[in-house]
Amino acid sequence: MIQITLPDGSKREFKRGSTPMDVAKSISEGFARNVISAQFNDTTIETSTPLNEDGSLILYTFNDTEGKKAFWHSSAHVLAQAIQHLYPNVKLTIGPAIENGFYYDIDFGNNIVSEKDFPTIEKKFLELARGKHEFKMREVSKADALLKYKKEENQYKVELIENLNDGEITFCDHSDFTDLCRGGHIPNTGIIKAVKVMSAAGAYWRGDEKNNQLTRIYGVSFPKQKMLTEYLELLEEAKQRDHRKLGKELELFAFSSKVGQGLPLWLPKGAALRDRLESFLKKAQKKAGYEMVMTPHIGQKELYVTSGHYEKYGEDSFQPIHTPKEGEEFLLKPMNCPHHCEIFNHKPYSYKELPKRFAEFGTVYRYEQSGELHGLTRVRGFTQDDAHIFCTPDQLDQEFKNVIDLSLYVLNSLSFDNFTAQVSLRDKENKDKYIGSDENWEKAENAIINAAKEKGLDYVIEYGEAAFYGPKLDFMVKDALGRSWQLGTIQVDYNLPERFDLTYKGADNQLHRPVMIHRAPFGSMERFIAVLLEHTGGKFPLWLTPEQVIILPISEKYQKYAEKVLDLLENSEIRALIDDRSEKTGRKIRDAELNKIPFMLIVGEQEEKDGIVSVRKQGEGDIGTFSINDFVSFLNKEINSTLQQF
Amino acid sequence: MIQITLPDGSKREFKRGSTPMDVAKSISEGFARNVISAQFNDTTIETSTPLNEDGSLILYTFNDTEGKKAFWHSSAHVLAQAIQHLYPNVKLTIGPAIENGFYYDIDFGNNIVSEKDFPTIEKKFLELARGKHEFKMREVSKADALLKYKKEENQYKVELIENLNDGEITFCDHSDFTDLCRGGHIPNTGIIKAVKVMSAAGAYWRGDEKNNQLTRIYGVSFPKQKMLTEYLELLEEAKQRDHRKLGKELELFAFSSKVGQGLPLWLPKGAALRDRLESFLKKAQKKAGYEMVMTPHIGQKELYVTSGHYEKYGEDSFQPIHTPKEGEEFLLKPMNCPHHCEIFNHKPYSYKELPKRFAEFGTVYRYEQSGELHGLTRVRGFTQDDAHIFCTPDQLDQEFKNVIDLSLYVLNSLSFDNFTAQVSLRDKENKDKYIGSDENWEKAENAIINAAKEKGLDYVIEYGEAAFYGPKLDFMVKDALGRSWQLGTIQVDYNLPERFDLTYKGADNQLHRPVMIHRAPFGSMERFIAVLLEHTGGKFPLWLTPEQVIILPISEKYQKYAEKVLDLLENSEIRALIDDRSEKTGRKIRDAELNKIPFMLIVGEQEEKDGIVSVRKQGEGDIGTFSINDFVSFLNKEINSTLQQF
Repeated sequence: MIQITLPDGSKREFKRGSTPMDVAKSISEGFARNVISAQFNDTTIETSTPLNEDGSLILYTFNDTEGKKAFWHSSAHVLAQAIQHLYPNVKLTIGPAIENGFYYDIDFGNNIVSEKDFPTIEKKFLELARGKHEFKMREVSKADALLKYKKEENQYKVELIENLNDGEITFCDHSDFTDLCRGGHIPNTGIIKAVKVMSAAGAYWRGDEKNNQLTRIYGVSFPKQKMLTEYLELLEEAKQRDHRKLGKELELFAFSSKVGQGLPLWLPKGAALRDRLESFLKKAQKKAGYEMVMTPHIGQKELYVTSGHYEKYGEDSFQPIHTPKEGEEFLLKPMNCPHHCEIFNHKPYSYKELPKRFAEFGTVYRYEQSGELHGLTRVRGFTQDDAHIFCTPDQLDQEFKNVIDLSLYVLNSLSFDNFTAQVSLRDKENKDKYIGSDENWEKAENAIINAAKEKGLDYVIEYGEAAFYGPKLDFMVKDALGRSWQLGTIQVDYNLPERFDLTYKGADNQLHRPVMIHRAPFGSMERFIAVLLEHTGGKFPLWLTPEQVIILPISEKYQKYAEKVLDLLENSEIRALIDDRSEKTGRKIRDAELNKIPFMLIVGEQEEKDGIVSVRKQGEGDIGTFSINDFVSFLNKEINSTLQQF
Repeated sequence: MIQITLPDGSKREFKRGSTPMDVAKSISEGFARNVISAQFNDTTIETSTPLNEDGSLILYTFNDTEGKKAFWHSSAHVLAQAIQHLYPNVKLTIGPAIENGFYYDIDFGNNIVSEKDFPTIEKKFLELARGKHEFKMREVSKADALLKYKKEENQYKVELIENLNDGEITFCDHSDFTDLCRGGHIPNTGIIKAVKVMSAAGAYWRGDEKNNQLTRIYGVSFPKQKMLTEYLELLEEAKQRDHRKLGKELELFAFSSKVGQGLPLWLPKGAALRDRLESFLKKAQKKAGYEMVMTPHIGQKELYVTSGHYEKYGEDSFQPIHTPKEGEEFLLKPMNCPHHCEIFNHKPYSYKELPKRFAEFGTVYRYEQSGELHGLTRVRGFTQDDAHIFCTPDQLDQEFKNVIDLSLYVLNSLSFDNFTAQVSLRDKENKDKYIGSDENWEKAENAIINAAKEKGLDYVIEYGEAAFYGPKLDFMVKDALGRSWQLGTIQVDYNLPERFDLTYKGADNQLHRPVMIHRAPFGSMERFIAVLLEHTGGKFPLWLTPEQVIILPISEKYQKYAEKVLDLLENSEIRALIDDRSEKTGRKIRDAELNKIPFMLIVGEQEEKDGIVSVRKQGEGDIGTFSINDFVSFLNKEINSTLQQF
């Protein structure tokens, strides 16, 4: 008998030679039906691999990342099999699972595979999969392995095998197909119910452009047809919601090759939207006792030598700016904190004056390689909704809680209701990697955990993920498509107060070191707006959206009345405009829908006579007629439902 | 007889050998009494110099810059005479008039002159001046001149004379004093009624530190005692109003040697003040049809090569920023216009969409030598309240008028009521120095002049002062001390639309070139706030000032009531705070006065009982008791009296 330990810590006895699937069945038949992959003592194995010693076993379903990996790796085998059936002379190379699916790099010889061939491949794939063929691993000698592939004249596999030693070469068989493979499969091909060949692209053997060009076939597969359908819909939706596409359509921002890559130009509508976001946060911050400051976008190199940023990032970032005379050296600021430390340093403080909370929408510049740039999510210049709180160690607890409150307020007001927090703490085994006293670290880590608990956050703790200068809490937000984004952050810092020799006079009349909190509820304006665009598909919360209302006069005759309505709305601080083009109303409605304007007011003879408006809601259609006053009240109610007071 | 032409163009006949004073007397005895200096055919002469040919004569009084120059140059002679009386062994060197007074560099040998000696010098000066000694010029030979100064062992004068030729050496005598001198004096010493020795400082002979160190005695003198008193009061007031001093006292901004010279850090109160100024202008701009945009603080070198800024300023400015990879070159932006041109260029426009008015509070960076830096008026980084209007040539006229309206609104709202405009036009003799067609220049220049006339501006035209790319109008503002500052500017530009190939589609369906207007009603936030500080002495208009009201509870017992008052004020958007220190009320009032807080509310037993506040106005004292509501109404009335709606 052997003892198997399960992830929940429970231990069970099994006959030597039992398989992971036997263990799964002993838990429940229903569970076993979903188990597709396993890991034993940290090694990936098959569900059919006999277990011959005591150890820890993890059983995976398709819901687990490891389960998906086995599923897609196995699918790559079936894909290769299907292609071999259709194109007998191809030479297979490698076919791994990737984040969303799998690919196989294949030398098609003189054959050309294109989109029109995908349905045939998918059909053959499913036909083979339906055979419920089991994946079976077997060890082969190097000589036998080479023999097989030399016979097939597959120089790629030969090359792979030549780099392996006897005893580490395994083949995987299923149905009539055999492949060189390390293992990690699902029980049988029948589990794969749906497949989609996504694309074909050129790829060099071993990624080296001096080698032969192969064709990389990308695919994705699922245990249910419905899951594939949903995945493809999600992909299409993500494409529609790409913030670069929406940003252009909604005229929010643009890039100019003359100004430079990764340096967004905010167009009027985008700048106004950003300004509204900033005003929203400013207002909440004012209530929370923050004070706005403004600092330059450059600083002497010495400033960043003092802060340590130069040593850490200097060489990989924008290079120093020299002056034509006097030999001075400046740097574009990569962070606002050194400037805020100098503001704190401009006069002495007593403990009674703390905490000081200096906030700034500070634009910083960081070099990224052009290949890394991506719309607004990866840029070279961006504006942080930055603030630095300078407090006594005793105030840390309360300040951290206050920052969580503010961050939650921001996320809730912007329709992000699905988020978790990651708490990054020290690696306790390597305490000397971190600056600051043990006592302060304990205090800060406890403060963060208590704050997260008290505020009811759904959080995970990651040990060893803290910065060297202090622990932190990051908000991980899920968007409407279920994708995760890291947005706001709260970080404790013991390092900069030390480096800038920051002090305050305590009740004991002695000088003490304050603690610093860096925090940014949005993270950066650019990234936040990008994520918000993708999350909402451009349908921003009503309080934020560029144009809340568009007035559509059904003909020129009603232009005057439309202007009167516009005036009344503007007097009530509603952002509105008139579509006075000589287009048909149907066309005007379609364009307004496309521009994601939340409300359309159609005005014609009846409306003018009764002093009312006929209202359509974007994406929903007609919602009835309103007097102007009633419509304003209705809008304000809508606004207040998402935008609470802080 | 000779014919003398006066500045008004009139011609009069005089006997050959008549003096400027004779001419003055022929105009009027009263006028002649004020004439102190003259210029004949562009050469400065004495009022006693005989006129022997036809020519143009200008007669100066102390009100003229040239008159002051003669007055102060003559005063330097009297100063030297007085010092020679008091310290017989000194050696005189040179003694010119300067912008505000005069100085004399003197080798005092072993004598040390300090502030305590100034009254004695002034006494001797006035005693000598009262003798009404006439200044008389005479030509001397180089040999005689050298003889005099060699005898006196004055190597300085010897050196000066050795560099002159026979025929160009003149002495000036008055009383018992003779000096080497080129001329340009007032009629006699008796005109100088008041003198003040301002300071004594070290100065090297000929400004070369390898030479002997001399003592530079600075003085200022006037034809009336009252003028001196006023001048000294003005100096003292200017010292009190120095924006660097006030900025520190009011905690508006600070500089850090680590961040760098000329790079202001805006402290909370200063940042809030700046934000209020920006909001004020944003609001007016919105009404005027501007759209805010946001652009990065750097741009590729190519952007500035396109705009022409690189060629013009590149070498003298902050040097290019290199990237660690990819060999890119960026520049800190010295101007926002290239970025705004690229925004205009991001999509095609029809004439129906013009004018486009893109506004940005854009921070720009320009290198200045450290010796040139001065508080906020001369910095290395500053924020322009910039906007660029892109319009058709036909719209230029109206747009220019609109910008004048906006500029006047800004100046009036900020208590600048004394200003003139300078209109800078082309030099018509050198038309090829300028870019753009003759027709467009005529149009633009007429547009500016018409606009200035129509808006009732007090303006002067300066020919040849236009930029090469277009004519402009600058606002010259006089502050409370009568000093002139250049603030807002409006410039027409034909160059950048050309360089950036900006176009719009006209009614004729052809592409046309728009005209650009650059404008900044404040000029820059930094400079404007500095001038406003010096103009108001820190007593900002009520709508703008950091803290409008301070509540002074006369003891701890009334803290609760003070807080209630604070809440009520804050609910009415009044910026208020409580002075809850355990200081006597008198001390609290003194501190509030010093901090220029416009209103102090004293609250004690009676106030709490009656639900009222006792109000003191800064600089004026008690103005009575008010209910909170009445006080809020009173404040709003005060605010509305300076801050009209645009």
